[in-house]
Amino acid sequence: MDRKIRVTVWNEFRHECDGKHKASQVYPQGMHSVIAAALAREGDLAVRTATLDEPEHGLTADALADTDVLTWWGHAAHGEVKDEIVDRVHQRVILDGMGLVVLHSGHFSKIFRKLMGTTCNLPWREAGEKERLWVVEPGHPVARGLPPYFEIPRAEMYGERFDIPAPDTLVLLSWFKGGEVFRSGCCFHRGNGKIFYFGPGHETYPIYHQAEVQRVIINACRWAAPNGCPPPVFGNQKALELL
Amino acid sequence: MDRKIRVTVWNEFRHECDGKHKASQVYPQGMHSVIAAALAREGDLAVRTATLDEPEHGLTADALADTDVLTWWGHAAHGEVKDEIVDRVHQRVILDGMGLVVLHSGHFSKIFRKLMGTTCNLPWREAGEKERLWVVEPGHPVARGLPPYFEIPRAEMYGERFDIPAPDTLVLLSWFKGGEVFRSGCCFHRGNGKIFYFGPGHETYPIYHQAEVQRVIINACRWAAPNGCPPPVFGNQKALELL
Amino acid sequence: MDRKIRVTVWNEFRHECDGKHKASQVYPQGMHSVIAAALAREGDLAVRTATLDEPEHGLTADALADTDVLTWWGHAAHGEVKDEIVDRVHQRVILDGMGLVVLHSGHFSKIFRKLMGTTCNLPWREAGEKERLWVVEPGHPVARGLPPYFEIPRAEMYGERFDIPAPDTLVLLSWFKGGEVFRSGCCFHRGNGKIFYFGPGHETYPIYHQAEVQRVIINACRWAAPNGCPPPVFGNQKALELL
Amino acid sequence: MDRKIRVTVWNEFRHECDGKHKASQVYPQGMHSVIAAALAREGDLAVRTATLDEPEHGLTADALADTDVLTWWGHAAHGEVKDEIVDRVHQRVILDGMGLVVLHSGHFSKIFRKLMGTTCNLPWREAGEKERLWVVEPGHPVARGLPPYFEIPRAEMYGERFDIPAPDTLVLLSWFKGGEVFRSGCCFHRGNGKIFYFGPGHETYPIYHQAEVQRVIINACRWAAPNGCPPPVFGNQKALELL
Repeated sequence: MDRKIRVTVWNEFRHECDGKHKASQVYPQGMHSVIAAALAREGDLAVRTATLDEPEHGLTADALADTDVLTWWGHAAHGEVKDEIVDRVHQRVILDGMGLVVLHSGHFSKIFRKLMGTTCNLPWREAGEKERLWVVEPGHPVARGLPPYFEIPRAEMYGERFDIPAPDTLVLLSWFKGGEVFRSGCCFHRGNGKIFYFGPGHETYPIYHQAEVQRVIINACRWAAPNGCPPPVFGNQKALELL
Repeated sequence: MDRKIRVTVWNEFRHECDGKHKASQVYPQGMHSVIAAALAREGDLAVRTATLDEPEHGLTADALADTDVLTWWGHAAHGEVKDEIVDRVHQRVILDGMGLVVLHSGHFSKIFRKLMGTTCNLPWREAGEKERLWVVEPGHPVARGLPPYFEIPRAEMYGERFDIPAPDTLVLLSWFKGGEVFRSGCCFHRGNGKIFYFGPGHETYPIYHQAEVQRVIINACRWAAPNGCPPPVFGNQKALELL
Repeated sequence: MDRKIRVTVWNEFRHECDGKHKASQVYPQGMHSVIAAALAREGDLAVRTATLDEPEHGLTADALADTDVLTWWGHAAHGEVKDEIVDRVHQRVILDGMGLVVLHSGHFSKIFRKLMGTTCNLPWREAGEKERLWVVEPGHPVARGLPPYFEIPRAEMYGERFDIPAPDTLVLLSWFKGGEVFRSGCCFHRGNGKIFYFGPGHETYPIYHQAEVQRVIINACRWAAPNGCPPPVFGNQKALELL
Repeated sequence: MDRKIRVTVWNEFRHECDGKHKASQVYPQGMHSVIAAALAREGDLAVRTATLDEPEHGLTADALADTDVLTWWGHAAHGEVKDEIVDRVHQRVILDGMGLVVLHSGHFSKIFRKLMGTTCNLPWREAGEKERLWVVEPGHPVARGLPPYFEIPRAEMYGERFDIPAPDTLVLLSWFKGGEVFRSGCCFHRGNGKIFYFGPGHETYPIYHQAEVQRVIINACRWAAPNGCPPPVFGNQKALELL
């Protein structure tokens, strides 16, 4: 891509607005602000943000048309995301090839579940335990610049059985202190688009401030950027060869 | 599986009931009757049928609870399949591991699209042209007993780009006289369940009377039969190790 | 398969013959004897054993022709396995579809490395630590009858990056007390054959006496049994259509 | 990658040197010259060539250390490629992540067979028939800039069953006039490296002069370029956690 990759960082942005919620201390401007700032330091990414409570959740047709990769964080208000906006995002991924980077509790968002076709449910535990992420496909673009493993000192456990389709490429695997494993870095092709699911990111730990976590999201945005491939050809066709 | 595999052969059964439609001549008792008869000749399959116009489309909770593998043919009336029944089938596949064998124009059924997460759209042509199916994964259970390729003398063309997720295993690839290729035998794991998509089967050609086509469907039913695995464990978990 | 699946349990059988090695206490008759006995209790498996120090390592052309699935345990003497025998096993897998179940340190055997095409190297630690195996593809035949996870009280750690091709299906993931994860249950199609790699099995812990471990090996033998598909067609071909 | 991607275009270069062989007319300077010229027109690729009859086949340790992606065309003289050079290329792919783009009859090269672990054999026919390549994964980097399909007017048929492991991503599928299909654009991760197999390219047809064919090779070089990931960590490890 010769021009900058246009990334829209989407956030539910509710926990951080609730002064009684610890997230408001860890991310006073919202997780999206920290993520967007990290992405914006990269010269090839043009970044803006959108949140649930903006009109049309900040995801108007124009905004999406102007987005190459959308990152998604949601948790408590998945149900408030309007179905028509979910359909709009879905179409933009499948038909136009917009990339989607789904973060942490975004596993249970309407858009991720619609794209995966499964429940996307999982076992979890909120105990501030250590998570260690291992690179299992080191040659993949999402692994660029990563060490063989990195640690998150305090994380929410997400474990298996994670009810997703087997990813097209499994890049990261997590170990949790409490005894679980998790497929925490998963690549999917869907339609013309590419989707990356990334496990870390609980709202009360400063995970998005961590360099390796930012590195994965940056890599994922580059990997998920659209290919510029034409829309697919469907419907009734004439024969290319004489019948 | 020590007992018989219980297969329910589902059919929209509209074309065949329309005396003016050619399907009524090729399949006077409905495609489901021909498919069910072929399956019933196998000693390890217990077969029954269900159709759209039965109450609850013949897919009551009891009927599904009594089904290990469901085969699905639909075409003109996808929209008439009730969403609650689609959700019931979806749950039964994902959580209980019921197998699903999707036939031909079933690619556009609500249940297949819901499970795949993509449009499942494709280019097509109805010209009665030759289709030749090549086995590309000969060691897979669905390929058991198949020659290196087999032909369907007159088929509807279904081509690429077929908008599905890359299958977990690609077993069959089709060549069409008119110039196209098609991923016509595709295996998917979704939740606890297994799904097989099989391309051949237009309603006005006697395709389900053909031995190789029946062989593939029989193999697919055996492959897709549930594993007896327990329902997945989701939700809040205690630590297995001391934290 | 209507007849019994003929399984040959192959073992290097050196550690157990060395009275000073702890393996001689844990497996006085050899690991192969314990594995073979577990398999033989299943009514559909016909089991025999073969070991390195037999003529042709017990893997004569006749013995292989009479084998549907070969299980492989080796460790200290990989280099003593003759290349011609390796080639014979390779041909039997690729062309005839014999199944291969590679156990633990068999990851570094000549035959597994030849089939994978990579180094098959990995990080490891021998500290008798706890391993917990999680089922990540519960609908797969290899997972039949398994609980969501099971534990091995004392195991050798095998970790990532495990230098193998991404498996066609990943069934089991291991957690280790010391901080690592491992893709410990991996399915591969290669040629007409199917290969399963299974991580557990160090020679000084009684791992092959454990019921869940035996269950996985039994399941793997059934899954890996050949399909009866004809040998592939290679070489110069006439056109099927008029050119 | 901030610097140019260093591509070495390797060619057996025997047919073209034989004045009686038609290849000497189609590619008087060798196929590598045409491929290299096409790559060199891209601003981000630094290209050189190497051929079989150079010392060490032009693939000295220094030359490989200076190569990010190696393209490989061989046919009649696979057996003359020295095993030590094959091992050197293999190590460079697996451990250092050098990309490898294998062209046409390179399917039967020692290096491709070693990396795949299978026979890599296939059915073929030399009849100058039409090949049509369909894009089946339009979002993949190798498909960038391609139309939904493109044609090669006169090609050698390569068909299924192509004895390779299922590719990690299948990007292109070929249709042949004579009745066959072929997985003609296949991506593989192996070790730290990435491998692309591309079907077109018989030496007596001007296939490497064709723009779409050049586009695929250019895309493949970019996709296969190494990630800069550190060499994997193998061998005995201390525990990261207290045991």
